[in-house]
Order: sequence, then C-alpha cells, then structure tokens
Amino acid sequence: MTPELEDLFAFLRFPSISTDSRNAGDVRACAEWIVSKLTAMGLQTTLHQTERHPIVVAKNAHQPGKKTVLIYGHYDVQPVDPLNLWSTPPFEPEIREGKIWARGSTDNKGQMLAHILGVEKTLKEKGDLPVNLIFLFEGEEEIGSPSLAPFLEANRELLKCDIIAISDTGMVAPGQPTLSYGLRGIAACEVILRGPARDLHSGIYGGAIRNPATEIARLVSTFHDPEGRVQVEGFYDDVKPLEDWEREMWAKLPGTSDDDFIRYSGASKTHGEAGYTSAERTWARPTAEINGIGGGYQGEGSKTVLPAEAFAKFTFRLVPNQDPADIMEKVKAHLDKHCPPGVSLLYVGGHDGKPFYTDPNSSFGQAAQEALRKSFGKDPVLIREGGSIPIVQAFRDILGVDTLLLGLALADSQIHSPNENFPVENFEAGIRLNQALLEELGK
Amino acid sequence: MTPELEDLFAFLRFPSISTDSRNAGDVRACAEWIVSKLTAMGLQTTLHQTERHPIVVAKNAHQPGKKTVLIYGHYDVQPVDPLNLWSTPPFEPEIREGKIWARGSTDNKGQMLAHILGVEKTLKEKGDLPVNLIFLFEGEEEIGSPSLAPFLEANRELLKCDIIAISDTGMVAPGQPTLSYGLRGIAACEVILRGPARDLHSGIYGGAIRNPATEIARLVSTFHDPEGRVQVEGFYDDVKPLEDWEREMWAKLPGTSDDDFIRYSGASKTHGEAGYTSAERTWARPTAEINGIGGGYQGEGSKTVLPAEAFAKFTFRLVPNQDPADIMEKVKAHLDKHCPPGVSLLYVGGHDGKPFYTDPNSSFGQAAQEALRKSFGKDPVLIREGGSIPIVQAFRDILGVDTLLLGLALADSQIHSPNENFPVENFEAGIRLNQALLEELGK
Repeated sequence: MTPELEDLFAFLRFPSISTDSRNAGDVRACAEWIVSKLTAMGLQTTLHQTERHPIVVAKNAHQPGKKTVLIYGHYDVQPVDPLNLWSTPPFEPEIREGKIWARGSTDNKGQMLAHILGVEKTLKEKGDLPVNLIFLFEGEEEIGSPSLAPFLEANRELLKCDIIAISDTGMVAPGQPTLSYGLRGIAACEVILRGPARDLHSGIYGGAIRNPATEIARLVSTFHDPEGRVQVEGFYDDVKPLEDWEREMWAKLPGTSDDDFIRYSGASKTHGEAGYTSAERTWARPTAEINGIGGGYQGEGSKTVLPAEAFAKFTFRLVPNQDPADIMEKVKAHLDKHCPPGVSLLYVGGHDGKPFYTDPNSSFGQAAQEALRKSFGKDPVLIREGGSIPIVQAFRDILGVDTLLLGLALADSQIHSPNENFPVENFEAGIRLNQALLEELGK
Repeated sequence: MTPELEDLFAFLRFPSISTDSRNAGDVRACAEWIVSKLTAMGLQTTLHQTERHPIVVAKNAHQPGKKTVLIYGHYDVQPVDPLNLWSTPPFEPEIREGKIWARGSTDNKGQMLAHILGVEKTLKEKGDLPVNLIFLFEGEEEIGSPSLAPFLEANRELLKCDIIAISDTGMVAPGQPTLSYGLRGIAACEVILRGPARDLHSGIYGGAIRNPATEIARLVSTFHDPEGRVQVEGFYDDVKPLEDWEREMWAKLPGTSDDDFIRYSGASKTHGEAGYTSAERTWARPTAEINGIGGGYQGEGSKTVLPAEAFAKFTFRLVPNQDPADIMEKVKAHLDKHCPPGVSLLYVGGHDGKPFYTDPNSSFGQAAQEALRKSFGKDPVLIREGGSIPIVQAFRDILGVDTLLLGLALADSQIHSPNENFPVENFEAGIRLNQALLEELGK
C-alpha cells in the first residue's frame, strides 16, 4: 500500500460522526490527526474550538503578489446505520475492485485528503506552493455547518482569499473531469389547512362541510399545469435562460440521459417541465416539490373521518436569478388566491438559500478547467447541480468570494448510504488535481 | 327516584365496554342482568354465547294471527377515555339539569331499557302484549357486530318477524319526534401511488421524476368539480332523486340549517354539491370523501425528499339506489383514467354496505308515525341519516325484514364522547313510545 493510501486509511478509521454526541471524542481525535498531518507538512495550523466540533485552519507562508486560494473540506461523516447492510465494517477501510470501501471515503475524507496530499507532494517536490494557501476544514458539514458562518464572520481577515475550491460534488461519469458552476437555491414552507373544529364523522357531515384533506389536494394540484410548468404567477420572471452552449454540452454528457435518471431513481419514466431534458430540468430549471403531505387517518384500513386539518410541505428549488424571498411572496399570493372558503390557511415559512452561479469561463474558471484537463488527460465538462450547498452561498455572502466545485464523487459512490466507496483512481487523480489546480490558479 | 330510573342506573353501572378484553366480565354481568330483568317480566329469555359477548333473545308467548315485532338494542358501550374530561365518573350515573349523565345513557342503554320498561308496563297494565315480541340485544355493536350476522343466519326461524324497530338514531331537536327511513351506504378503498424505488433527494431529482405526493393530490383533485359534484363517470346514474315532499319537509326542520351545521362542526362555512341544502347533501346525496392522505415527510420542519409513494383513503357514501360494487368499478375506472404515467397505482378495496331506504308511509311506517305522535304529542318528522347502520342492511339481507328507526338521541347527547347524557324526558317518552308502537303495529 502506498503512503498516500495508508494516510487515507488512518483518516477513515476515525468514526467522526458529527450528529451523534457519543462520537464527539472521535470527531475531535480526527481533527487532531489532521492538525498533526498539516503541521508535519510545515503548514501553520490552528485548531479552532466551536460549540460542537473543531474547525482546522492551515496556511503556508503567504507572500505578497501571489493569489490566495482557500480549499474547503469536511472531516465529519454521516451515521452508518443500517449497519447490517455494509459488506465490511464502515470504519475498517478495505480495497476491493479498485475502490476504497468506508464511510467518508468519498464524502468527504477521500476528496479532502487528496488536496492535502497534493499540497504535501508539491511542497516535497518544489519546496513551496505556487499560491498562498488556506486550508479550511470543518467537522459539522453533515449537521448543516452551524458554526461555519459565524466563524467566517469572525475571521474575515484570516480567511481573506481570491478564490475558493471544494471537491465535494460529483463527476458525470467515471474518468470524466467535471466542473460544477451552478447550484440551485431553495425556499421551503409548509401550508396547513384547517376546517372543522375537530375530526368529524364522515357519514354525518360528509357532503356538507369542506374536507381539508380534499382541499389540500386541490390546492397542491394548482401548482403545476399538465406540462409540468409551475403555475405560481411570476415564478419564472427572473429565471436566467439556459444558454445555447449549456444545452449543447449537456446533451452530449454521459450519465444524464432519461434512461440514466430512470436507472438511478427506479421510476418507470421521467417527467418534468415541457421543453427541457432531465439534466436541464434538474440543473437549470426551478421546481415546486411536495416533500410531504398528510391529513386524517394514517393507519391501516379505513376510518370514516372528515379530518379537521391537513398539511403540505413544499420546497421550491430555485435557479439564477430567482430570489427566495421574492418567490415566497409569490407563493403566498398563489396560496391565498387558491385557498377555498370554509377552510383557513396557515402558512409556515421555512429555510431558504440563494441559487449559485459562477462563470465557468472566468480566469479562475479557465484555470480550474485546465487543471482538470491535465490531471485526467481529458477535456472537462461543465455542469450545474440540482442540489443546494449553503456554504458556497456563505462564502460569497461573507467572504465575497466565488467557489470552484471540482467534484470527484461518482453516482454509485453510495454517499450517506451503506457501502460508501471511492475509486482508488479518483483518489490519485484528486492528488494530481490539487497540484495542477494550484499551479493554474497561481499563474 | 322512580323504579324506572333505578333500573336504568343499575343498567348504566355496568362498565360494559365491548372493545376492551379487561371488561369482558362486566359485559357478561350486564347481559345476565338483562336476562334476570326480562325473565322477571315473564319473557322466555335465553343468553346465547358467541365468540366474544353474549346475545340475549327474549319472547312473550307468541300467538297466531298477531304481528311479530323484533326490537333490537345493544348493551355494550364505547370506551370512556379521556377520563379526565368527564364531569362525573362515566359509570356512576347522576341526574343534573334534567339529564342522566353516564356512558351509555343515550347510546344505547337508555333507549334500549325504555323499550324493556314499556313492555313491562304494558304487561303489568294489560297482562299481555298486542304483538308477538322478540327482543334481540347484542353486546358487540360498538365493535362492529361481528357475531350478529352469523347469529341471524343460524337463527332465522327463532327471529322470524314482520318488522324490526330500533331506537339508536337521532331526533332533529328536543321534543321533536323523528322517524328515520333512510341511511347512506358506504364503499371504502385506498389508493397508493408508487414512483421511484426509494425516497429521492429533491435537489438531485426534483423536476425530472414524478412526485407521488404531487400526483396523489392531482388524482384526488379530479374527484370533484368546483361546485362539489363528484366527477366519477356514471356516479349519479342510479341515485334516487329527492322527492318534493322530502325537500319541503326537510326545509322546515329545526337543527338542520347551515348555521346548525356550522355550529356543530366548528367549520366557518358549509360547502357541498350545488343545488342542495346541507340536510339534503348529508342525507340523500352521495359523496366522495378523503378520510386520510399521506406521503413523504410527516415530521416537524422540512426534509428535502421526493417521496417514493403516497396514499389516499376514500370512502364513498352512497344513497338509494346506488350499488357499492358498481360504484367501486366506476371509481377504479376513474382512477385508471387519471393515473399519470411514471407512477404505478395500487388499489386496495375496503368494506362496503348498501344504502337503506324504507317507505315511511307503508303501513308499518304509518304505525310508527302514529306511535311517535301519541307518545310525544306532536307530529313526527321524517328524515334520512347520513351515516350507515350495517345491522339494518343485515336484517334486510338475512331476515328479509325492514327496520323502523325511532331514535331518541339529541345532537348534544355526546355519544362516544365524554359526558354522554340522556334527557329524563326522552327516557320517559321512550317508555311511552314502546307502548304506543306495539299497540299501533299490532293493529
């Protein structure tokens, strides 16, 4: 086994599950291992205590005139249950079929350590880095990064940089270098419809009193037309249209066809807004999604009740240049317009996050593309992603800096699931990618 | 206290809760009390063991040429929780404000005992009854009468009769004698829509895969038009239209205005099929009711999931001459027609029951009306009810005999709820009613 893989195995053996307080000691031990590693590499490294899990910051000796690059990663991992579905224990890494099997192998220890080892290699080979480097590693990403934004607020000077790079997203196919330049935003809310004062007998009252379960269904059904378009007035007003080059590039991508979506989801067909492909629908078009609906009897069999209330939980995935607050106003107006008499509507606002978009052909974007090309020997593809990464928005809002997303995860990496794995070749490519990226960004 | 009320208090003190196996001894003791009471009155009384709670049958000496009348009642009661909401203990009856407060006072011990005591009084006064009488009392009504239909099947000869009378329905207002001549039937089913193989991340897949929670809402929304009419093709084909006399009589009834429905239900408005009053909608028009809807995240806050499946539980309340099996075929066709591609539909059939209708102006109906008039000193009103009473259908199907529903319950009798009560005057009127009813039916 190479020294690099030995380092990764040591890193993976920490059960650094951030959500479980019984693992708090393991999370801290993992952070201390990182500190030792970085210190041994000659970086000036500090462990910052937070209310839960430490943040580690490391820097080389910064020199005026050089670009400053911040590389973010997280060393905490998701829980491992159901444990019985793992082929080998989640914290006893093993290599099989060219892949490293362990919790955190892809998300995010494997990708994070590749950056560390790339820096180590460059330092060994050249004695110095081509950029001023800041490593920023947190232990709370899997619980929503509660300490990160306050830490950024409190350490703007310490973290001042020109560009940020993260390897925590996906590749469209094995061996296909991928730069993500956009993320969808989100706006969540819940709607509760209340009718009668209590659950009623559906024989005695059915037919004469509005049924909140029926009405929540009717209300939800007003959100889409049969072609999958969202019917909230003004919903698409600020949507940045897809550019021709995006549609052309995405049409040729592996791993994003309707058949791929069907295979990954287990659904029998794809479906969405008319006039767009599945990749376009999930990466560049906004949605109105029902995450939960409920009301009345939930048990087995039947109960002849006319329920007192029913609810629906919505999230709207937003794209540039939609604004979450503006969208929620429009959604509220839609709800008020379609709420029937005889039931009252309670609106409960939820979390939100802005969509993210950065020009992939900016000078930093071109540097990232070149680094991907060099380390994989192949032209990178440019994609957006359908999910939201709130830290990217926090970096922009607080530090005023854009982020390059150079992901190494594969569709079958099983992140957050049993049997998480990371190809050895992706790990090795990640080390090369770090070296190339810093070189290109430093130019 | 009168001897009649002393009898009622003794009857009410048995905690004859049929659903709770811990009360099985109490249920049996209650049945044995009834046997003693009826035997002491000179009736030939038998306790029939069933798999759960006994059925009591009693008869006078039947004479050829006399009409045979079966009076049905049930001596079991609903559970009493939440106990803390009772003003006085549920099995320690008490008279306050002219009402008897106890579990079972209205449903059904008070009404059932009024029949027994009416018979006792007639026997004392006249030495004989004007009819051949069969008392049929069960202890499983509140758990769905599982033993009754088999008992009817096995004892057709024993229970052979010309007409059945039950006092277990409602009066439209205090002091207003009420004959119910129709009940709605029911057909229940559940629909499950399945989409992706597992819950999906709504950021990664949202917009490209059909969401079963959205689709169940759209499917439910196809069941009604904006005017409250059920949109299942052929749904109204066999509906017996309301007759003019029904609409005229119901329009004048107390306790059935929109304001009454609003007051009893706590809803802010009434709503239903266009062109009908609330009484007409609940008594004589069929409905499609959602008793439960669910899918996706049910907890607090939000979870960005695209659920794998969602369900809706339906009951259709049916009116003469709709047939449950025919309606369910039509509902299935509607579901198949409106189920979108990309989700699969699982239909689960539930219980059903035919609607009931008997001519209130038949000779037996007129006798019942005359008995109500005599015992309350007021013309009775003729109504139907929105609920279903499966035993009425069982009597028609198995014994081939119609049922007269002469109810004494009031809207605020709190049956099945804490603080159940029964006006002393209704109890006394019930005794008079039994005497008058047997006299009129015997003519």
